[in-house]
Amino acid sequence: MNNGEKGRLFVISGPSGAGKSTLVARLLERLDNVYFSVSATTREPRHGETDGKDYFFVSHDKFREMIAGGELLEYAEYVGNYYGTPAGPCDEMLSRGRDVILDIETQGAAQVMKLRPDAISMFIFPKSFEQLEERLRLRKTDSEKKILARLAQARIECRRAEMYKYIIINDRVETAADEAEAVITAEKCRTVNRLHYLTGD
Amino acid sequence: MNNGEKGRLFVISGPSGAGKSTLVARLLERLDNVYFSVSATTREPRHGETDGKDYFFVSHDKFREMIAGGELLEYAEYVGNYYGTPAGPCDEMLSRGRDVILDIETQGAAQVMKLRPDAISMFIFPKSFEQLEERLRLRKTDSEKKILARLAQARIECRRAEMYKYIIINDRVETAADEAEAVITAEKCRTVNRLHYLTGD
Repeated sequence: MNNGEKGRLFVISGPSGAGKSTLVARLLERLDNVYFSVSATTREPRHGETDGKDYFFVSHDKFREMIAGGELLEYAEYVGNYYGTPAGPCDEMLSRGRDVILDIETQGAAQVMKLRPDAISMFIFPKSFEQLEERLRLRKTDSEKKILARLAQARIECRRAEMYKYIIINDRVETAADEAEAVITAEKCRTVNRLHYLTGD
Repeated sequence: MNNGEKGRLFVISGPSGAGKSTLVARLLERLDNVYFSVSATTREPRHGETDGKDYFFVSHDKFREMIAGGELLEYAEYVGNYYGTPAGPCDEMLSRGRDVILDIETQGAAQVMKLRPDAISMFIFPKSFEQLEERLRLRKTDSEKKILARLAQARIECRRAEMYKYIIINDRVETAADEAEAVITAEKCRTVNRLHYLTGD
């Protein structure tokens, strides 16, 4: 599978309620040869979340150790908790020729884009803020106060969408998955990634 | 269908025998809202080709008039004949918000890319030159001399593939059509083309 070609790093962001997690799950079902980066976080696991699969759930002390040790590709604080991307597994997968998907928020994405200008970034946009609010309320995991905080945060994050290379509109998840998959396929077809065909190597 | 957004101009090239015509036909079956530019040419119609559909078949004199009148987006001479793209219909479709596909050879493509730096260019690459030769021989329309001329020309054209934004590998036509369709979809998702979502317009 690996012809010496390196994998590509994809960064996906979007506000809570834009349907990003569902979209990413759909993408992973469709794509081979993709590694979905597992983030480290200090927040409590939600019902049904598994350590090492959904997140690496770590203490605040452990997280600060990882920052100090330079073990994170990016990190950010969000609603009182740390979230970060362990660099090691991503770089190993990329060097093996696997594409890597990071599902991170906008502060972290900005750090990755600065460190890795080749990263291909996508911002998942809700059809409207009304749709976003509806999705947040359907979750029924958050208090009213938290929902309002998430909505305010969503508006801030959406203003940062301009720094991304692509914008995916998540009105229907299948259409959004088609768009995100198209971006991943198209990026593989970029001439710079196919020069080995030209030389016959 | 038209929200004030302009269409995008796609340029597709590839050597004879790379399966470009079949690929473009497949793409047009799949896509709505696309205008396939009909070229003008001075070459003789092949069996089954229709004037105004496959090409506008014109005389050498008429073609030179079109050049002089600035009616062509690009033109080139190839194996003793002129080929060119009438500008008018393309620009009209683009302004109506329809995407436009130009199926042109590398000399013409270079002219379009210079005139229209926003054009999205794809080069259709055969899996190998052996496959390309096989396809040319299967056609049975060309003499041995013409086949050899086309093969030599194909090698020259393939060296120009680097100037294209994307390279589509046409081993199997369905996979190649998937790639080309992905490029077209991905280009629609570029942030610059979706800024109207950010402002809520």
